[in-house]
Amino acid sequence: MTVDFTTEIDTAINSKTKPRGSLGVLEDLAAQLCRIQASLTPSLVCPTIVVFAADHGVARHKVSAYPREVTAQMAQNMLSGGAAISVLSDQHGIDVVLVDSGVDWPSTRPAGMIDHWMGPGTADPLLTDAMTAEQVQDCLGAGADVIAHAVDPRCTIVGFGELGIGNTSSAALIMSGLTGLDIQDCAGPGSGLSPEGLADKIQILGEILAAHPTPHDGFEALQMYGGFEIAQMTGAMLAGYRSGRILMIDGFVASAAFLAAWSIEPAIRDCAVFCHQSDEPGHRRLLDHLHAEPLLNLGMRLGEGTGCAVAYPIIVSAATFLNNMANFDTAGVSTGDPETVLA
Amino acid sequence: MTVDFTTEIDTAINSKTKPRGSLGVLEDLAAQLCRIQASLTPSLVCPTIVVFAADHGVARHKVSAYPREVTAQMAQNMLSGGAAISVLSDQHGIDVVLVDSGVDWPSTRPAGMIDHWMGPGTADPLLTDAMTAEQVQDCLGAGADVIAHAVDPRCTIVGFGELGIGNTSSAALIMSGLTGLDIQDCAGPGSGLSPEGLADKIQILGEILAAHPTPHDGFEALQMYGGFEIAQMTGAMLAGYRSGRILMIDGFVASAAFLAAWSIEPAIRDCAVFCHQSDEPGHRRLLDHLHAEPLLNLGMRLGEGTGCAVAYPIIVSAATFLNNMANFDTAGVSTGDPETVLA
Repeated sequence: MTVDFTTEIDTAINSKTKPRGSLGVLEDLAAQLCRIQASLTPSLVCPTIVVFAADHGVARHKVSAYPREVTAQMAQNMLSGGAAISVLSDQHGIDVVLVDSGVDWPSTRPAGMIDHWMGPGTADPLLTDAMTAEQVQDCLGAGADVIAHAVDPRCTIVGFGELGIGNTSSAALIMSGLTGLDIQDCAGPGSGLSPEGLADKIQILGEILAAHPTPHDGFEALQMYGGFEIAQMTGAMLAGYRSGRILMIDGFVASAAFLAAWSIEPAIRDCAVFCHQSDEPGHRRLLDHLHAEPLLNLGMRLGEGTGCAVAYPIIVSAATFLNNMANFDTAGVSTGDPETVLA
Repeated sequence: MTVDFTTEIDTAINSKTKPRGSLGVLEDLAAQLCRIQASLTPSLVCPTIVVFAADHGVARHKVSAYPREVTAQMAQNMLSGGAAISVLSDQHGIDVVLVDSGVDWPSTRPAGMIDHWMGPGTADPLLTDAMTAEQVQDCLGAGADVIAHAVDPRCTIVGFGELGIGNTSSAALIMSGLTGLDIQDCAGPGSGLSPEGLADKIQILGEILAAHPTPHDGFEALQMYGGFEIAQMTGAMLAGYRSGRILMIDGFVASAAFLAAWSIEPAIRDCAVFCHQSDEPGHRRLLDHLHAEPLLNLGMRLGEGTGCAVAYPIIVSAATFLNNMANFDTAGVSTGDPETVLA
């Protein structure tokens, strides 16, 4: 981006009838939308949230408050429109695309999901890599395929959600492996472990970390720790970035997928809007590592892309003020004493 | 409210297909909506933001980065649909009602504003009370009249905004007078004072405080410090509460009006949703005094009710999840180990 364009963005924002800087984060966000789209009139069209669902080998250890079959049950609930992401996306006219990345179905996959099934869950990372290198490559390709073929070509903004009993464990492992932070600072209660349950989770995750070498990059971290839905999300984020889209990053698991994507393609950071700080305690540290300040901090910890859905109207507000507010000159409003206002 | 109804609310929220507590603040907010409406299916209809505009006697001292005529100019800008509150309300289908509480018009009042004009700005509070007791009473009545006659009778949720060069000074005085906090902890740069300008503002506000006795309640504080729009907002908040509506409280000035309302009618606190923590530094202290945690903290400091408009979709999300999500039993989703999840 040229210096001139940065100046043009600042001029456009500061010409609006409001005290300079008085829309706070909305002004920073509007500038980011302009940079991503190389336009002074950013456009949010066909907003879409892609939800990737899969089961996890790590879930055979007691790392979640919920049994493994809940992944399949909740996928069905999303298809029926009854999940949190379903109703919150409906509220804002956001399309939801649901991808079967590797759910352990009790019988057959229900209709309505995109099929990128990699198997009935990853391998147990205590015993082996959660995935083979070929599986990681396939997952990255599957995520890109979803962006290319399952998302409306007109879509300019895409969010990412996930569903998978056990996946905060994979996310904590990816975070610890790639940041070097202690697993105690990465793992949390997930969907609702007791303090004793969390202690057991940290114990087993420490054993898993010790069973693998330190990953060199996101690709290796995904291979060692899984899961299928996280790796496909990483692939979709990379493809979303490469297609020039605004990326909405949800909570802890989605941020771990983003961490992997960032290690593969650092420039992706510029296109990411962090939507919500999860109540999962490791997320704040992960956001610090990513130099990210999310739009919302509402104590949510549900996943599914719900943070993206709740934050989406704020992103729209950023585009709205820039596109629709009057300017000082055309509205005939005095700008005040520039020396004072600039101070 | 009965204990039984509290239990019913908790049961309704916890029956939704999500880990218990995982929607964080949205769950607390949904429970509040249920309590206000005495219903397990809260309904947000005809959302409305009332913006009160007036000029201030205190503005003849150098307390604002903007000249006094900007109040009238910005009111015209709102009528033309070009102000921030105009475009952000449009985004969400929120009605905006604009009230002339006492603007110092250069010629005649433009068409489209509700007429509750009390005069061309309050008196200078350094020399006398900003208002007479009769004016305060009239302002409270005018605010109630707006709720009764200018807001759609079907409206269940109403927000409050303001416009008035100099009104962060009145708000800081009200805050200091009613909380006992030092004026240095209440006053801030408002629309953009320099550090030197802020020092001058604090100096003059200290002199104004010294020129009056300590107010006993909100009524007296409004009388001493003004302004017309703040007092009318207080009246509208009280009337909104008495008519059973959900009240959206914006930033620093609106919170000062709420502080006055709270001192008159303490039960109003239960109906208030605090929307946004202003970047005006005194607001955080005022929120602490009100035991309030706002939904958003986006660094905004624009007034006009903009914090209400940006936060409104989050309030809708709270009602949406409660009204529209599937329950565990009907969706056939396992609830996990209750002992673990409850921990």
